[in-house]
Amino acid sequence: MTFFGSRWTQRPEHVRELDPCDLPAGFRAAGVAAGIKPEGLDVGLLVSEADDTVSAARFSSSGLLGAPVVVTQQSEVSRLRAVVASSGNANVADGQRGLDTAQASQAAAADALGVSAHQVGLASTGVIGRELPRESLLAGVRRAAAELGAHADHFSRAIMTSDRAPKRACLEVELERGTVRLAAQAKGAGMISPRFATMFCFVETDAALDAESLDLLTRVCVARSFERISVDAQLSTSDTVIVFANGRAGVAVEQRTRDELLLGEALDALMRQLALEIVADGEGARRIARVVVRGDPDRVEAVARAVADSPLVKTALHGADPNFGRILCATGMSLRGEPFLVDLEIEGRQVASGGVALEIDGDEWRTLEQAVQGDEVEYVLTIPGDGGETELFFSDLSHDYVTLNAEYTT
Amino acid sequence: MTFFGSRWTQRPEHVRELDPCDLPAGFRAAGVAAGIKPEGLDVGLLVSEADDTVSAARFSSSGLLGAPVVVTQQSEVSRLRAVVASSGNANVADGQRGLDTAQASQAAAADALGVSAHQVGLASTGVIGRELPRESLLAGVRRAAAELGAHADHFSRAIMTSDRAPKRACLEVELERGTVRLAAQAKGAGMISPRFATMFCFVETDAALDAESLDLLTRVCVARSFERISVDAQLSTSDTVIVFANGRAGVAVEQRTRDELLLGEALDALMRQLALEIVADGEGARRIARVVVRGDPDRVEAVARAVADSPLVKTALHGADPNFGRILCATGMSLRGEPFLVDLEIEGRQVASGGVALEIDGDEWRTLEQAVQGDEVEYVLTIPGDGGETELFFSDLSHDYVTLNAEYTT
Repeated sequence: MTFFGSRWTQRPEHVRELDPCDLPAGFRAAGVAAGIKPEGLDVGLLVSEADDTVSAARFSSSGLLGAPVVVTQQSEVSRLRAVVASSGNANVADGQRGLDTAQASQAAAADALGVSAHQVGLASTGVIGRELPRESLLAGVRRAAAELGAHADHFSRAIMTSDRAPKRACLEVELERGTVRLAAQAKGAGMISPRFATMFCFVETDAALDAESLDLLTRVCVARSFERISVDAQLSTSDTVIVFANGRAGVAVEQRTRDELLLGEALDALMRQLALEIVADGEGARRIARVVVRGDPDRVEAVARAVADSPLVKTALHGADPNFGRILCATGMSLRGEPFLVDLEIEGRQVASGGVALEIDGDEWRTLEQAVQGDEVEYVLTIPGDGGETELFFSDLSHDYVTLNAEYTT
Repeated sequence: MTFFGSRWTQRPEHVRELDPCDLPAGFRAAGVAAGIKPEGLDVGLLVSEADDTVSAARFSSSGLLGAPVVVTQQSEVSRLRAVVASSGNANVADGQRGLDTAQASQAAAADALGVSAHQVGLASTGVIGRELPRESLLAGVRRAAAELGAHADHFSRAIMTSDRAPKRACLEVELERGTVRLAAQAKGAGMISPRFATMFCFVETDAALDAESLDLLTRVCVARSFERISVDAQLSTSDTVIVFANGRAGVAVEQRTRDELLLGEALDALMRQLALEIVADGEGARRIARVVVRGDPDRVEAVARAVADSPLVKTALHGADPNFGRILCATGMSLRGEPFLVDLEIEGRQVASGGVALEIDGDEWRTLEQAVQGDEVEYVLTIPGDGGETELFFSDLSHDYVTLNAEYTT
């Protein structure tokens, strides 16, 4: 199995990969083609069969939120049983009509599944500012409800937009009290940003947790994964992470136990790897980079963002050009008015010390050029100050990004 | 004449265009090929003959400043007589060696021109983090000093990097007390940013002003021109604006007179048009846009930056796609946590009201699509709040931007 494919993540010892389309006990999913997109699957439905399922959710922080986000936030976010996820149209900026459509889809799913409408989460992704065809969505929800099965293939495809491939995994996690499963289906390629952006990630486990624990684990793991990536620095209207725990494995994970740590470690590895897959699938991306910034705790975040979001750094990454001048320049942009005492390493080789470029002879330069041609490139910056450290993962900026976003309305 | 070619600028009534390579009385310029770039002119020299010349200057605010900026800031910025401007290598991040090279070029120019070293401004643009070949630069300065003439053609070409054409103008300005000239030579295409970026603009007038007036006029006009443009949101290490006034026209422009206003108006028009030329020449740019934001004075700037710097808005601009959803999305990114009551007009046509997209039928949509295919596109956003208004000019994001910046080290 090859889910943990990046050098920046690794499979925890107590985790085993299963078929990526598998689901934990008591979860069922489906995906259908409802005609919202010109072709392909576009309405997904995921449900937990257990009455006492708990959930946790995180949403976009944009000032402009999609109707599905607004409606879900007003629902019982810690007691969700299901999610309707659709692609092709984000249902954003459509006023009362958009809210009505979102609520109608919530009611249709509740009706078909025999749960309360307030227990159905919603997520839509796609074009902004156009009407989401209500009848297509509702018919899709009803058809999906009739096709539910213990397999996430169609569901994970129904949430794709410009993604090159579905992003999903199912893990078996060995806890002290027994074995549980942890599965996830994610999407995201463009509009991936500072705070975490048009991405969805739905996670299911058959472990039993209380809602408070699940919320804490979700918060911590999202902060270390989807909030540490940037494709194009664009915050979406529709980002949604929903994590379900239904207890069907018969393994209770109590607060402040070693099992909570072990499950958290598995969730962390799962979300980080999915986050890296989103970056690697960044629209038009050829390779991804990690920038690590150490120094003044109040400045490391801004420096990391300045580097990760610089189109000059991103085009150099695309061109496999070890152009450290652009990285220093982006760093300078966010460190105004102080002595520029910055060290920079590229792929473990120091190229600047105290803000001054080091001499690099022809052979060394060729080695460096070779080193930045891989799929993953690492930059480490040390700025003045002590105690702070952060990391960001980002993709390159390519012709294909321009083609995708100039020639298609997304 | 066609200098004032944008619909967003206009020639003031009291201004007449001269040959764009002309200079005001008492200024001389030259440009030579010194071998810093693989080919072409790369060292420029500009000098004012009058002892009592005054000057004003503005520089990049980056934390990483080029050696020429550092050395110029330590010189007599209100009494400059000359500037050495070179292209091909920015002389940045080269430590003491870079500072020594900058000072040597200042001394060489002072020696050749018979002025004090502290009266020579410096400006270099090009690659960062490589040694600027000192002997080539010094030889270039000496040759340029021997070739000075009343014509700015070679000078304006010697400062170009990825610019498609030289940017320059010479205006005749009719004041109440007499007629003066106002000329400028600018460069800039990439790394053009929030605060104003790798751009140079050298301005000469033969009007007589005191240093304080000149500084004030420069400050105001730069704030309305080079600080209102963005090609790629990248702040450079080397931005430099220097304005010289040498009094050779025999027309004194006193503080708080109508002539000061008239000269200021001409300088404003000149700098705004040059700023627009920099945006239009943005690396790979096909068209430029103006975004106007009205509403809460504390928020208009951040919203304008979010729109102008969004790669999704910029690619839509490139593709002539009236994709207002992306503009609303970028706006939402900078307006978190409040009701999204935003109006948007594209080319005078309202497309969203109170955060809700308006119905646009097929004919109207085609009209809108037509309207965004020109060289200049205008967006007007109204956000909650009163009294604030700002504008930003920005370029599209194209395949050529990626090609230029992925395939060449700049």
